[in-house]
Amino acid sequence: MLAELGKKARKAARQLALASTVQKNVALTQIAERLWEEREAILSANQKDVVAGAAAGLSPALRDRLTLTESRLQANVNSLRDIAVLDDPVGEIFDEQVLANGLKVYKQRVPIGVLAVIYEARPDVTIEVSALTLKTGNAVILRGGKETIHSNRALVAAIRKGLEKSDLPLDAIQFIDNPDRALVQELLKMHQDIDMLIPRGAAALHQFCRQNSTIPVITGGIGICHLLVDESADLESALQVIQNAKVQRPTVCNALDTVLVHRAVAGDFIPRLVARLSEDQVTFRADEDAFEILGGVSTDRVQLAQQGDFDTEWLSLVLGIRVVDNIGEAIEHIARHSTSHSDGILTQNAQNAERFFGEVDSAVVYLNASTRFTDGGQLGMGAEVAVSTQRLHARGPMGLQSLTTYKWVVIGEGHIRE
Amino acid sequence: MLAELGKKARKAARQLALASTVQKNVALTQIAERLWEEREAILSANQKDVVAGAAAGLSPALRDRLTLTESRLQANVNSLRDIAVLDDPVGEIFDEQVLANGLKVYKQRVPIGVLAVIYEARPDVTIEVSALTLKTGNAVILRGGKETIHSNRALVAAIRKGLEKSDLPLDAIQFIDNPDRALVQELLKMHQDIDMLIPRGAAALHQFCRQNSTIPVITGGIGICHLLVDESADLESALQVIQNAKVQRPTVCNALDTVLVHRAVAGDFIPRLVARLSEDQVTFRADEDAFEILGGVSTDRVQLAQQGDFDTEWLSLVLGIRVVDNIGEAIEHIARHSTSHSDGILTQNAQNAERFFGEVDSAVVYLNASTRFTDGGQLGMGAEVAVSTQRLHARGPMGLQSLTTYKWVVIGEGHIRE
Repeated sequence: MLAELGKKARKAARQLALASTVQKNVALTQIAERLWEEREAILSANQKDVVAGAAAGLSPALRDRLTLTESRLQANVNSLRDIAVLDDPVGEIFDEQVLANGLKVYKQRVPIGVLAVIYEARPDVTIEVSALTLKTGNAVILRGGKETIHSNRALVAAIRKGLEKSDLPLDAIQFIDNPDRALVQELLKMHQDIDMLIPRGAAALHQFCRQNSTIPVITGGIGICHLLVDESADLESALQVIQNAKVQRPTVCNALDTVLVHRAVAGDFIPRLVARLSEDQVTFRADEDAFEILGGVSTDRVQLAQQGDFDTEWLSLVLGIRVVDNIGEAIEHIARHSTSHSDGILTQNAQNAERFFGEVDSAVVYLNASTRFTDGGQLGMGAEVAVSTQRLHARGPMGLQSLTTYKWVVIGEGHIRE
Repeated sequence: MLAELGKKARKAARQLALASTVQKNVALTQIAERLWEEREAILSANQKDVVAGAAAGLSPALRDRLTLTESRLQANVNSLRDIAVLDDPVGEIFDEQVLANGLKVYKQRVPIGVLAVIYEARPDVTIEVSALTLKTGNAVILRGGKETIHSNRALVAAIRKGLEKSDLPLDAIQFIDNPDRALVQELLKMHQDIDMLIPRGAAALHQFCRQNSTIPVITGGIGICHLLVDESADLESALQVIQNAKVQRPTVCNALDTVLVHRAVAGDFIPRLVARLSEDQVTFRADEDAFEILGGVSTDRVQLAQQGDFDTEWLSLVLGIRVVDNIGEAIEHIARHSTSHSDGILTQNAQNAERFFGEVDSAVVYLNASTRFTDGGQLGMGAEVAVSTQRLHARGPMGLQSLTTYKWVVIGEGHIRE
């Protein structure tokens, strides 16, 4: 069954590669309309998943990711329309040159081909990934988590109804409507028909894909994110930025996990931080120095950080705090504990910012801003297919261009190599 | 032992990432000088490998790849100097934008980190890869084939003497001085300390790496290359181009493997082609139509193509010939048999060229030129670390930029996400 999906996807990809931008945009608009028309069916299917998820004891973080509301769906449909009006990277010509021997050489952007995306309880991913892959002329095989099976069935049905109203192949977007995990194992070996595999989910899934896939894998979406409150930080601004990074949507990968505080401001700042974020029900894991500053007594609110706490992506209202002696110690902490997703410095000192940017090698590095901006939509890409934390092909939020490759075109007049 | 190599490489990579362009160029110049000064030792070490290779029954193709001559070494040393004067991609800022909310966003090119390159009997690769990885601030672990062990020892010794005269870490360039194949298996699992793996060699090596590596792999360097002689081709020019593509250096991946000839010109062209290339000792595998045109009798020179012949990378003076009815049939043949390395059309018809460029999705597509130009040096990149035939990260000749990734930099003034 999967092998057939793969062959259909490959065939669709060949057609999609020749589709015009207008054809693809019409299809996206049709899909957006269908999704919105069928919102009741979609939300009610999603409700089934949410109820089942609650019964199955899904964590609050996963339940939040799973939940579609009319306003979230509206936002997804809007991002689909945003994608339709974005420039189509396919066909773009770049790096043109005429060599000394007269050969004309350029590169031209082309689709990657067939993508497979494995993800968990996030129905919004179904919409975003379908839109981005279609816009870039790629075919996609979706494999959502079993927790979202009803939502995904409803979403993919609407998406394919939209495709039917376009002249693009229906098999551009396919969905593995079977939660059997053995199928994932099979999928990972289909390098003949799948060109790129994107797992979106927990670390275990990424590791599983890395160990077992013969298809190139883009890993990402796991963020142990840091903000350093430097000696010269604007402390009031720092409070707001940290509050936003931790509290605004704690269940996602760009939410803050650990605050590093320069010793010179720790005594002043840390108690204010705890007071401010306590209003939002945040609890804290403090290193010894921070724990001491906070009174040295365990409470419901504040605990001494244990082994592994600084290596945990919290995905909830928990925040680590550590006091550092200097920026070098902060950079060292980040090198050891970060997943190289999103890390920032809050400072008014330009030299320190520059050093931080030079030595912290994360996908996104920040100065005086919330880590929550690590997002394709926020950074002007319309939407994102994933946030890559690996170093090849694409890094950080992956928008349209990350879903393309290029071919070299060489034009001669009977040129031969000497 | 390998684990230690990995840790040293990681440490060196951190230092290299902060190295200035001048520091790296000085190191490259020092290495070039050392290589040339020690050419006698290098060539005599290489001679040992060549003699041993001949005794071990190495194929002529491999022996040619293995052989260093003073002029080949000179060319390698020159390409090293060419690389020193190329622009350093590291640090380059691109895709700058100021978002509506005032956030400043840009991308900055950074090294990938640690690369491992597994290759066979090509001492020139030792030099090129060392230079390209150093120029881009990456550390590299080299694993050449056992057939080149003496050459590589001499080369790496000279390279490290050059590094000693610079202020870059010696462990920037390391070499696995042990032909034990079990070490490769171990290397493939070192994803903690190696960021990118490049196998350069036969298909079996690529498949082995794809199946066993937990490190992202760039595969390439295997070229079943095609040229289509279209109905409107300039036949005299076509003869020259095909001769060059087949004969100039038949043992490398961009050498021609199969000529497709439009039926309208087949009767005229194919006999001329065979006559011309027979002077260079080329032998032919003709499909039934071409065989018929050539008299329909097997000779030392011409044989009927057998099953699998069109799926063979010859790496020798053998050329496949097939007659096609039209450009669509040629494109279909290429889709089925090409390794998506280098494929071209010889035509005076612009529409046919455009269709070929649109539908043939190889790393490099050609109009009226020899496939032998698929080479980093030829295409203006100074040298190449590999020719990628996969679709992620880099495609075709991989020069300096392919050995970098980027980080996003986001600069705010206390920005928070609404």
